[in-house]
Amino acid sequence: MTIKYFEDFRVGQTVKGKQYYEVTREEIIEFARKWDPHSFHMDDSAAGDSIFKGLTAPATLVIAIASWLWHTLESKPALVAGLGWDYVQFAAPVRPGDRLSFAFECVDARPSESKPDCGILSTRVTVTNQNGEAVLKLVDNYLVKKRGKASLNR
Amino acid sequence: MTIKYFEDFRVGQTVKGKQYYEVTREEIIEFARKWDPHSFHMDDSAAGDSIFKGLTAPATLVIAIASWLWHTLESKPALVAGLGWDYVQFAAPVRPGDRLSFAFECVDARPSESKPDCGILSTRVTVTNQNGEAVLKLVDNYLVKKRGKASLNR
Repeated sequence: MTIKYFEDFRVGQTVKGKQYYEVTREEIIEFARKWDPHSFHMDDSAAGDSIFKGLTAPATLVIAIASWLWHTLESKPALVAGLGWDYVQFAAPVRPGDRLSFAFECVDARPSESKPDCGILSTRVTVTNQNGEAVLKLVDNYLVKKRGKASLNR
Repeated sequence: MTIKYFEDFRVGQTVKGKQYYEVTREEIIEFARKWDPHSFHMDDSAAGDSIFKGLTAPATLVIAIASWLWHTLESKPALVAGLGWDYVQFAAPVRPGDRLSFAFECVDARPSESKPDCGILSTRVTVTNQNGEAVLKLVDNYLVKKRGKASLNR
């Protein structure tokens, strides 16, 4: 695993994860019970009657999986702090058995004004299922260490 | 608990939750280990060296707590499907012992073109800590049942 600093990113650059996360029925139900107890995330009959016509993962679980997949990247940004997300779209339902993978494209990279040893990256994240269909899209903005200052701190 | 349908919402209307969620150190570490294993979410020493100068909750946990708090509302929108979130800001760190509460303001309510028995609500969500400081802000967009059609379906 390699750490990538602010200077290592260019707008337009893409990073694709090599691992996937397999979603299980048990995890959907367990996560929903704890954090998002809609009947259509926990109960097959309610799920069948829902707009999704079957069990789907809560949005919050899909977000958590995206976070997990970020951590499996071989080249990981030297993240200092998350700032926020824009345009979060739950583009397609996530169902039991789906295998999700992660990629991002760097859409903006600028020095931080308030933190001179950091830059701000904006990355367009796409989480895709085994059929190549996007299930989650968002723009993730975070503070990333600059290489120079990171070395000085060691 | 009352279910609120599309027709029950007006732009400008606010809904405040009466319950709070208390964040524990153990839950921060456990959630981070599973979903967002940055050292500064799991380890006191790394957390102390971080920009936050102490242990903070992962963004994904704050989002999950917001979802949990939504479910504790006394008047709950008749949610059909989440569509997405805009302008998600992690406005302040969430720390062990924080007690988080939830409110939303309806910022848009329009009929769905593709689903005539539903409307689309846009709600500006604020999650606030015990000091009245916003820790999470986002706009949550979802499909909500219309009252008329919901009754016809029963």
